Amino acid sequence: MNEAITLAVDCMGGDHGPRVTVAAALDFLAAVPDTAVVLVGLADVIEAQLKRRKASPALRARCRVHHAGEVIEMDEPPAQALRNKKDSSIRVAVDLVKDGAAHACVSAGNTGALMAISRFVLKTQAGIDRPAIVSVLPTMKGSTYVLDLGANVDCTPQHLLQFALMGAALVAAVEDKERPTVGLLNIGAEAIKGNEVVKEAGELLRASGLNFVGNVEGDGVYKGAADVVVCDGFVGNVALKTSEGLAQMLARFLREEFTRNVFTRLAALVAWPVIARFRRRVDPRSYNGATLLGLRGIVVKSHGSADRYAFRRALERAASEVRHEALARIAARFAPPAPGEALPAADDVGGKAAAA
Amino acid sequence: MNEAITLAVDCMGGDHGPRVTVAAALDFLAAVPDTAVVLVGLADVIEAQLKRRKASPALRARCRVHHAGEVIEMDEPPAQALRNKKDSSIRVAVDLVKDGAAHACVSAGNTGALMAISRFVLKTQAGIDRPAIVSVLPTMKGSTYVLDLGANVDCTPQHLLQFALMGAALVAAVEDKERPTVGLLNIGAEAIKGNEVVKEAGELLRASGLNFVGNVEGDGVYKGAADVVVCDGFVGNVALKTSEGLAQMLARFLREEFTRNVFTRLAALVAWPVIARFRRRVDPRSYNGATLLGLRGIVVKSHGSADRYAFRRALERAASEVRHEALARIAARFAPPAPGEALPAADDVGGKAAAA
Repeated sequence: MNEAITLAVDCMGGDHGPRVTVAAALDFLAAVPDTAVVLVGLADVIEAQLKRRKASPALRARCRVHHAGEVIEMDEPPAQALRNKKDSSIRVAVDLVKDGAAHACVSAGNTGALMAISRFVLKTQAGIDRPAIVSVLPTMKGSTYVLDLGANVDCTPQHLLQFALMGAALVAAVEDKERPTVGLLNIGAEAIKGNEVVKEAGELLRASGLNFVGNVEGDGVYKGAADVVVCDGFVGNVALKTSEGLAQMLARFLREEFTRNVFTRLAALVAWPVIARFRRRVDPRSYNGATLLGLRGIVVKSHGSADRYAFRRALERAASEVRHEALARIAARFAPPAPGEALPAADDVGGKAAAA
Repeated sequence: MNEAITLAVDCMGGDHGPRVTVAAALDFLAAVPDTAVVLVGLADVIEAQLKRRKASPALRARCRVHHAGEVIEMDEPPAQALRNKKDSSIRVAVDLVKDGAAHACVSAGNTGALMAISRFVLKTQAGIDRPAIVSVLPTMKGSTYVLDLGANVDCTPQHLLQFALMGAALVAAVEDKERPTVGLLNIGAEAIKGNEVVKEAGELLRASGLNFVGNVEGDGVYKGAADVVVCDGFVGNVALKTSEGLAQMLARFLREEFTRNVFTRLAALVAWPVIARFRRRVDPRSYNGATLLGLRGIVVKSHGSADRYAFRRALERAASEVRHEALARIAARFAPPAPGEALPAADDVGGKAAAA
């Protein structure tokens, strides 16, 4: 395999396992030229899937199966998985990245275990205290990158600044926006202007040299108020999952209304092409693939429930980050600044703002 | 006016002022028998609106206009409004509740000012450290009460416990559910199980005697995982506004798809009754009216952008809380427990849980 980009694919993770991951990997190879995959997991199961999918010899030549004898369960404690399962599909896939046998790895498995193993094996990039989880969301204007989405429940202002620097570097690389706008997720100016951590983070961001646009409220995320929206992992996770829940509820109600009786079903038939276009536009599967940012290697987490199309999108995301040299872009952001540059050191908190 | 329930209505607040609030108050009177309103604000403006709306003498007899010479701007700092505007419509409306001239007050004005003035004038109920903002959201199963939505950005576990007790008492009163389920908003078990405050709050809730169902993730809110969902005001505000933003984006995309060309417009015509039913079902206006909970008086905040229907819904909410004696129900929850009861004292933190 001499392709430009090689992805290590954890085939065992997620709700559907190899049935989805192997099929998605073949779809990915067919769609993205000059790529290869290392399919990691129980070799016989993966081989059986490859056979079943009847991959062409050309595609098959771009797949390598790498046996890993253990599987980490979705609810297994991360520390235990890290300690005890050295031959798990996640561990082996991450090891392949570490060893240079793959450019990136993708898993739909246990998020906590993937993060713990990636941190342990790959280590964080210089200047970064904690990796963060970043994902893309659709907005009225296009899309936005939100981080952290759950890796760090308690953050200091410095952590939020680092998230902003990482996020901006990623967007600069992948979206080809040289100076992406950065917003700080906060609550309305009306009541109180956020907690101390957020206020201090705002000051650090103003002094960071980033294209900082100030506070973004919850509704601003979907209004496209910034290319990068920064928050702690607790808030980010709640915001993301609340959105998922709301979208699911609305989809269900819409379906219920269109299937209420023979007349509504007829209306559904007529409206179907329009509804289908609408659904494609906001299809969460298109946005599948959250990056574990700040590591010395590209690791992408797929939603556990991802189907074949969604998992392929996660693979495409990983490939895109490799192609656009996202890691190098992030590393450059954290390189010691040239004399006169305003990039603050990680311990430069500045004076605490007098709370309004 | 000898009606059973009298509401003090701040007619000057909100994006639309008396044009909406006065019309909504008349709608409310027409819809809900045995009620009266005190219309607070610039008397001549309110009188002009009453004239314009051509209220029947019967309705007109249930309105009293109470002049208040000042108006608090939407972006005015709360402390300044509290200090300087003793004759503002918000202040006068809250004073009417304090003096017993009204059972509750409703405002679409400046949230921070309404909270500051309500706290100062009415004081908190016994045993409650901080008032919280609670609102109702639709769910797949019906509806849920979420608090706090922005009054308290930094909360202790005890505060979260108090929110739970208040919320449960409110639901017990208004929804006639004797033992409503209570959930704690938290992030997925996958990565990390929440911050220290949330973990401790979980322990307090387990020992509280409430019908506690444990952690609720963001998507659980709309799945109807609990009748009451408790969180700090930062997280709650972000979750609420993120939902608003997502709903607006989806509504816009749906409209764009249905107005794309002559064929889609035809489809829209056919599907219109179905879409209309769907919209009614999730209409945020129906859920308008957030209660400032924990005060010695009922204060309801309407969304600033509320239209006539939405503002009327906020009035109906206030009247419902009066009718169901929500304040007495909350006070009873915070009364000293009978011997042998498990209600913990406010300073009973218990041992910190060893983090998993």
